[in-house]
Amino acid sequence: MTYCLAIKIDEGLVFCSDSRTNAGADQVSTYSKMHRFSVEGDRQLVILSAGNLATSQAVVSQIERDMQADTDFHFGKAEYLEDVADYIGQLSLEQQKKFLDDDSPKAGYKPGASFIVGGQIKGSPVELFMVYPQGNHIRTSEQHPFLQIGETKYGKPILDRIIRNDTSHEVAMRCALVSTDSTMRSNATVGPPIEVMFYKADSLDETAIYHRYEESDPYWLTLRKSWDDEIRKAFNMLPPLEDPVPRD
Amino acid sequence: MTYCLAIKIDEGLVFCSDSRTNAGADQVSTYSKMHRFSVEGDRQLVILSAGNLATSQAVVSQIERDMQADTDFHFGKAEYLEDVADYIGQLSLEQQKKFLDDDSPKAGYKPGASFIVGGQIKGSPVELFMVYPQGNHIRTSEQHPFLQIGETKYGKPILDRIIRNDTSHEVAMRCALVSTDSTMRSNATVGPPIEVMFYKADSLDETAIYHRYEESDPYWLTLRKSWDDEIRKAFNMLPPLEDPVPRD
Repeated sequence: MTYCLAIKIDEGLVFCSDSRTNAGADQVSTYSKMHRFSVEGDRQLVILSAGNLATSQAVVSQIERDMQADTDFHFGKAEYLEDVADYIGQLSLEQQKKFLDDDSPKAGYKPGASFIVGGQIKGSPVELFMVYPQGNHIRTSEQHPFLQIGETKYGKPILDRIIRNDTSHEVAMRCALVSTDSTMRSNATVGPPIEVMFYKADSLDETAIYHRYEESDPYWLTLRKSWDDEIRKAFNMLPPLEDPVPRD
Repeated sequence: MTYCLAIKIDEGLVFCSDSRTNAGADQVSTYSKMHRFSVEGDRQLVILSAGNLATSQAVVSQIERDMQADTDFHFGKAEYLEDVADYIGQLSLEQQKKFLDDDSPKAGYKPGASFIVGGQIKGSPVELFMVYPQGNHIRTSEQHPFLQIGETKYGKPILDRIIRNDTSHEVAMRCALVSTDSTMRSNATVGPPIEVMFYKADSLDETAIYHRYEESDPYWLTLRKSWDDEIRKAFNMLPPLEDPVPRD
């Protein structure tokens, strides 16, 4: 399983992802799910991926190959980031179809993959999309400034409470980490290292704030411990239930 | 959608359920999902239900009818609560199969229902089971003292953090309400009134602590507001991320 999320704030974009992949409980591996493409001073792209690892790796690889081969359309040529989201959806569908001809064995084969695609092309604002396994996509709105893929539910409540458009990048990154911690506690197939980065709007270059936390990282351990302590304290501050009302 | 949960603590059993059902967004209704069966001084049973409303209503109705008709097996005769869980699984399967013959239209028809079944039969300890739509069931363990059905993920993290075997019934009830609040915030089809009750181990009678909170209930409103405030405070107490490390 996987948990990736991205947040669009006034300051820019925050991305966060875990690094655990598994194909059955006996085949657990570590792969970065955060992929970055840069044309210095002109455009920046970050892709987070969830779902079938073969599909998502093939898509990321094809984006690179298309840039190198200077094909008719590639990330370096795109006028709009929305077209890049469309293109990634198409690459994903092509990869999924490759192994779906009638003759191939496909018991339990689930080739689908989801992507979060965010970045900026010079002259346009920062944008953030989610590309579905079906190839289509949605974008963030002012009312809904974050997107999640993979194991999304455990970590959503804290995002709903904290994230606003004017949230600072530090708070947004911290909230993304807390959201990931909640997910890891409830789903053992989401795990470290955890990567979190911030792309500053209009910077258009590769200098980003980036952290990678191994399981034993002192900050990560402190953050998890503090959150657990603070949640308990918060819970203990709640008003107790009123006097019992006997039923009938 | 639905959210129901039950917690087995040393003191007894806590049950909590929302009351919203929907069949499409334009058909939203309110039904209690907490059903109670009592043979004063001898046995107590609480059933929480999620899934197809026709199936779960039919199951609850059949349990009553079997008791009235004094059939070969019914709740009042059961020797073990586990047999009651089995019986509910069988009733559920029978109901689901009723409308699944080959001639009936069944586009999008999902007859499955899940049940949480808890209580006590004189001479045995309190027990808590979850009955799957397939008819089989699992029980709680010391390490995993709670069970959830319906929209389970949003509300799980707080249960993981707070609930232990020696948690008091007041704390367990409050935690169940907080868990339900988190679920309601993230899923609009889970909604009030919220029912929460506590069955005291070995009491074997109907006197239970029971609360029913309408959306405008003062305690419910205070609890929700306090939790939102306290979570934000807790979040603000977390250590900020260290100095940024530029990514090469």
